[in-house]
This record gives sequence, structure tokens and C-alpha cells, in this order.
Amino acid sequence: MAFNPNHFRDIDPGQRVLMGPGPSDVPPRVLQAMSAPCIGHLDPYFLAVMDETQQLLRHLFRTNNALTIPVSGTGSAGMETCFVNLVEPGDEVVVCVNGVFGTRMSDIVNRLGGKLIRVDGQWGRAIDPERVREAVKGRSPKVLAVVHAETSTGVCQPLEDLSSIAKESGALFLVDMVTSLGGMEVAIDEMGIDAAYSGTQKCISCPPGLSPISFSDKAMEALRNRKSPVSSWYLDMSMVGSYWGAERKYHHTAPINMIYGLREALRIIAEEGLEARFARHRLNHRALMAGLETMGLDMLVPETERLPMLNAIRIPEGVDDVKVRKALLTEFGIEIGGGLGELAGKIWRVGLMGHGARPKNVFLFLSALETILRAEGVKVKSGALDAAAEVYGAEGL
Amino acid sequence: MAFNPNHFRDIDPGQRVLMGPGPSDVPPRVLQAMSAPCIGHLDPYFLAVMDETQQLLRHLFRTNNALTIPVSGTGSAGMETCFVNLVEPGDEVVVCVNGVFGTRMSDIVNRLGGKLIRVDGQWGRAIDPERVREAVKGRSPKVLAVVHAETSTGVCQPLEDLSSIAKESGALFLVDMVTSLGGMEVAIDEMGIDAAYSGTQKCISCPPGLSPISFSDKAMEALRNRKSPVSSWYLDMSMVGSYWGAERKYHHTAPINMIYGLREALRIIAEEGLEARFARHRLNHRALMAGLETMGLDMLVPETERLPMLNAIRIPEGVDDVKVRKALLTEFGIEIGGGLGELAGKIWRVGLMGHGARPKNVFLFLSALETILRAEGVKVKSGALDAAAEVYGAEGL
Repeated sequence: MAFNPNHFRDIDPGQRVLMGPGPSDVPPRVLQAMSAPCIGHLDPYFLAVMDETQQLLRHLFRTNNALTIPVSGTGSAGMETCFVNLVEPGDEVVVCVNGVFGTRMSDIVNRLGGKLIRVDGQWGRAIDPERVREAVKGRSPKVLAVVHAETSTGVCQPLEDLSSIAKESGALFLVDMVTSLGGMEVAIDEMGIDAAYSGTQKCISCPPGLSPISFSDKAMEALRNRKSPVSSWYLDMSMVGSYWGAERKYHHTAPINMIYGLREALRIIAEEGLEARFARHRLNHRALMAGLETMGLDMLVPETERLPMLNAIRIPEGVDDVKVRKALLTEFGIEIGGGLGELAGKIWRVGLMGHGARPKNVFLFLSALETILRAEGVKVKSGALDAAAEVYGAEGL
Repeated sequence: MAFNPNHFRDIDPGQRVLMGPGPSDVPPRVLQAMSAPCIGHLDPYFLAVMDETQQLLRHLFRTNNALTIPVSGTGSAGMETCFVNLVEPGDEVVVCVNGVFGTRMSDIVNRLGGKLIRVDGQWGRAIDPERVREAVKGRSPKVLAVVHAETSTGVCQPLEDLSSIAKESGALFLVDMVTSLGGMEVAIDEMGIDAAYSGTQKCISCPPGLSPISFSDKAMEALRNRKSPVSSWYLDMSMVGSYWGAERKYHHTAPINMIYGLREALRIIAEEGLEARFARHRLNHRALMAGLETMGLDMLVPETERLPMLNAIRIPEGVDDVKVRKALLTEFGIEIGGGLGELAGKIWRVGLMGHGARPKNVFLFLSALETILRAEGVKVKSGALDAAAEVYGAEGL
């Protein structure tokens, strides 16, 4: 094939409405910040940007943890960072699995030579803490790990009981906050969480590429007391932490412009206020639920265990999953997600994350889905928009 | 400390002239591409962007390797990717060390449980292939690893002999191209290179955050034939490759906007043409050398072993390293690098990388350095600008 440099056109992705499991819609201010001139990773201005980014992250995580930084990779790099720093070969690690991301945690523990104690739960339901208590009984695991907001199912895992179990057994409490951070309360210090990681492209509404993490003093102590070196040089927090801390010791070149973007996204969050932001996520979720229920659609997750930012709709029998999602994308510019793993073809995942958790997206999605389902011959009950409007009317926009 | 969201100001880094060891100056077109709307990582438009990015990378690496992709992390993540996929515990790995990045390779091999065979050379000189031949004698190492362009010293390592030694011993030939890719010839297929990695923030002139890598069929075979799983889930190329390949199997969320930027930077390179670009790097290097020699300054590296894009100047005796660099930054907006490791305080590292390899940067730097050194009381010989101008005059701009 002849290579012709003029074959490539200007980047022009158009404008989507991102209502999948992430990335979510990115505010223009964030994109603008990312396009500021690149400067050096040891430039005094950039060092100040790093400090401010850490301050803003601590505010969002509700923590005083010194090591609270964006890892230079996506959310999965954050997951790996937590395990690779805290787990040594032979360490017992309890992992709660009720979706794709708990499964991924288990895979990582195995790769690191940890002794995996897996507590499996139904996909689409929260894990019963009593099952975890039983699994831990008589053991002293190094880590107890759980996903706060399972992006593959839309389940919210309550953390209080699991935190107590971790504390009682002396385990480090490790929590995946990829989808929860920025969309609901995740008070790390108050909840007794020792290691947490997230992603930028969900409720923070920054493009993907960074993974905010935070380690408690107890986690830092475990890292210092390791018998073997961290198997990853790139993600070794004893070294990365020196660059982000007072020493400023060069480790790897930070992703400068991505950090500009993250800082701006965090600043937008701080300006809105955490309580207002979380309330906005809950409100738009309720409006969406009201509309979907009115249409006669079922949700995968029982009401009390639902996440506000990720809504898993059961695909009505006989409806073509891919055809509907394609119509949403091509006719309305809306991206939603399909099911993963055992839920492939069975659910749609609809995100109301960060900047995208807005009435206009709720109404657009309900209108689009109703239109497409009707065109597919599905008998959809009418009144979805009214039902959503009623929620907004009752609670104030 | 009270947290005040209004305390944080708009991102405004000003405009630097980036003449350090990277990041280099980023063309406005790249920043503009990065600020295009974020879309989904499985969106048909983004899948096409991925394909084009791979085409452009293959053109730059001069390879037909199927696995030629940007890893979702900085250059060091690329280094780790190559070793973590190709080295298993107990594998013999020969690493050539004549600077910081060879040292880093050794560190990674040790963390992975590889059996390190280290060939040390003087910092500031290329490694003598005969020393490598001796080290390999009677062994069958799994990997022979070397840094093509040692960013910590400015040394260019010839690859031909080392490639032969690797082939004769049956080892995979692994090359660090972080600083060479985009600034000089790196024909992977022709040179018999099995695994290579680079960074976006050097001669590609894209912000840091991605690491282009390429694996030969022989490297892919070694990956398939592993006895143990790759210890990193995030960097496991058997899975990441499935997302970038025909299967499009979701692994982790790609850093969408960074990939927009990389594609644009690679497009700019393709438009300029590789030969023209490499010639431009050589020309500006020669002009800089002429100016520095005229001023009476010495280089760390002998003429025949110098890189065009990274120039290591010996700091004249009695001159305050940090004071001079600070003056360059504050008075002229120029960033250069200091020495690393054993060369700290002994050299300045001046980059002429990618977009920044231009006469205006050469003249600005020579003028600024001369001015500052004179102000510091150093007896600098005059005529540096004339000497540089003469090079441009003789060879054409």
C-alpha cells in the first residue's frame, strides 16, 4: 500500500452526547486548558499546577492523605498501582467479585502471585458483607478489595460494613472508585479506606488518560515494609511519590497537558460544590428512572442498590441490542454502552456522569429511545417525558 | 487550611522555548487536535483514528509490524511494556548501560526476576560492541537491550553490530528510541529490531503521555510462548493488541484526546518527510555545535558519537549550574536540562527536538547563553552567532 501523507484529514470527531459508561461529556473549559502550551515537568509553574491538582484531589476524595495524585495512565493503571504496591507474592487478598472490574482485580492479584480469596456475588447485586466476613474468618488477609461503583452492572456497593471487616481483620481496605468519584460521596478518611483509585473520564468529566489515587498512612507503611521490590518500576509509588512530594525527584515525565485538563475539571467540581454535584447526579438519575419505568422498561439492579451515574436497563425481549445502539449513535449522536461479559446482549448501560448528568440529556435519551423502540415495533407505554418532568418539577431543577 | 475553590486561577503557563531533554515545543496544530471533542473509545470514528495512528507510526518506525501502537503511558511505560512482555523470571537479559536509561532498564529486569547481564560503559561514550560480544559468549540470552539515544548524556549508540550480536545469539533485540524516533533514522525492520519503544514528547513534538512501541513477529512469538502470565495486566500486549487489532476487544479506555494529538503530530512529520526532518535535525545541531565551539565551550561526547537532538555541554569550571539555568528560564523563557546521576552539576543538556530544531532556537540559545555567561564573568570568545550563521549559509536553511 502506497503511503500518502495527504490522505489523512483534520481531526473532526463531530459532537456526541456521551451517555455510556465513560468517557463522559467534557466541558469546553477542560479541553481549552488541555490545549495550553506544554512546558517542562520540572518548570516552577508546572510544579505549582501539580500542588494545586493534589489539593483539589484531596478535596474531592475528602482526605488528608499525602499521597493523593493522578497516576500517569487510565483507571486500570490506577487499579494496578494499588495492587502492585500493596500485594507481595504469597499475600492473602480478599476480592469481592460481582462484575467485570472485580474480575479484573482478581486477575491482577493472580499475576502478582498473591493468594486470591474470591468472594463471588451475583452480577447486578451488591455483595453481602456477611459472605465477606465468613471468607475472612480465621485469616489475616493483607488486603480486602471491592468495587464501589461496578461500571459493568450499575451496582452501588455499601462500604461501611466492609470497612469494619477490613479493620477487624487488619487488612488494608482497597476500593475501586473509578465511576463513583465526582458523582457521589466517597469520603476516604471517614470511611477508613486505605487505597483508592479512580479514572478521569467518568464523573470528573475530563478525557481518559489519568487515574487519581490515594494511599493512607497505613498503606504507605505497608509499601515501606515490603520484603520484595514493587514489580512495576513505572507504578512504584515510593518513587512516583517523591516526584509529586516535596523532593521533586524526577521519575518519569508527567503527562503535562492531561494534568492541565484534570486540574480544570477538578476546579469546576470545586466551584459547583460536592453536595450540589452529588444531588444533581441523584436528581437526574431519578428523572431517568421515572421515564424508563413509565415506558415499561425494567432495570437490572434493585432500586436500593442502584448507582445514580450508571443505569443498567434490561433489553426487552426480541429487541436487537446492536441495532438500537447504532440508531442512537447515528440518528441522535448518543453513545450508550452494551453489556459486558455475561451481560452482553442483555443490558444497556446509560451513563449520567459529571458534566453529562443534566436534564437535557435525560429528555434527549428518553425521546430517542422511545422513538427507536417504537420504530422497532416494541409496545412502549407513553408518558415518559411527563414522568421525568414531574420529578424535576417536584424537586426543582 | 480552609479550602477555597476560587483560589485557583485559569491555566496560564505562558510560552517557553523548550530546549531541554523533553518535552519539546508542541506545534499549535497538535494542541488544537487535542482539544477536539472527546468521543467513545469504541466509536467508529475513533476506531478509524486508531487505525490511522498505527499507519503513521509504522511509517515513522519504518516497519510492517502488526503490533505498532501507542501505549497508554509515558516513555517509561513503554520501556516497562517491552520488558514485562518479553522477560520471564530466570530469563537472561543483557543490558548495555552508559547512562540513566540503561540503568533504568537494569532496574526493571531485576524487578521482573530476570537474570541481568550488565555491560557497563562510560557515561558520555557509546558502548563498544566487542564488550557486548564477550558478555554474550557461551550464553543464549532471551533479550539484548540497548538505548539508541541516551537522553542523559547525548550519546548515539550505533545499532548494526549489536543487532548482529543479538541475531547470532538468538536474543530478541530491544531498543530504546525515546529520543531518537522522529529525529533520526530508526528503520526497525531493516535493522533487525524486535522490540522498540519511544515517547511522544521528544522528536515527535506531542505532549508527554503516550509511548509508541513496536514488536516484531519474533517478539510476538516469544510473548505467545510465555510459561508465566505477564505480571502487568495494564501493559499485557496480548490483550492490548486485541483492542488495537481487528478484534477491537475492550481492554482499557484509550486516552482519546492524547491520541488525537499524537495522530496530528505524526501527520505533521509525514507531511515534512522523514529525510527532510532528519536533515533538519542534523543541520541545526551542526550550527549549534559551531556556535558553542566558537564560544570555547566543550562537549561531553566526542564528535562522532553525538546525537543531533540532544547536546551535552560541559559546564565551565566555576560556573553555577542552577543559576545559569534559572537565568535562561526567567530572562529568556528558555528551558534546558541539567545533568542526571553522576553528571549532575557537570553538564547542560540542550535539546533540538522535532518542532524545536530550528535556527531561531539555535540563535536564541547561543545569544542567551553568551549573555548570561558574560554576566557571570566567564571569558567567552566572540563570534558564536557568525559561526552558526555560516553553517546555515553554507548548507542552506
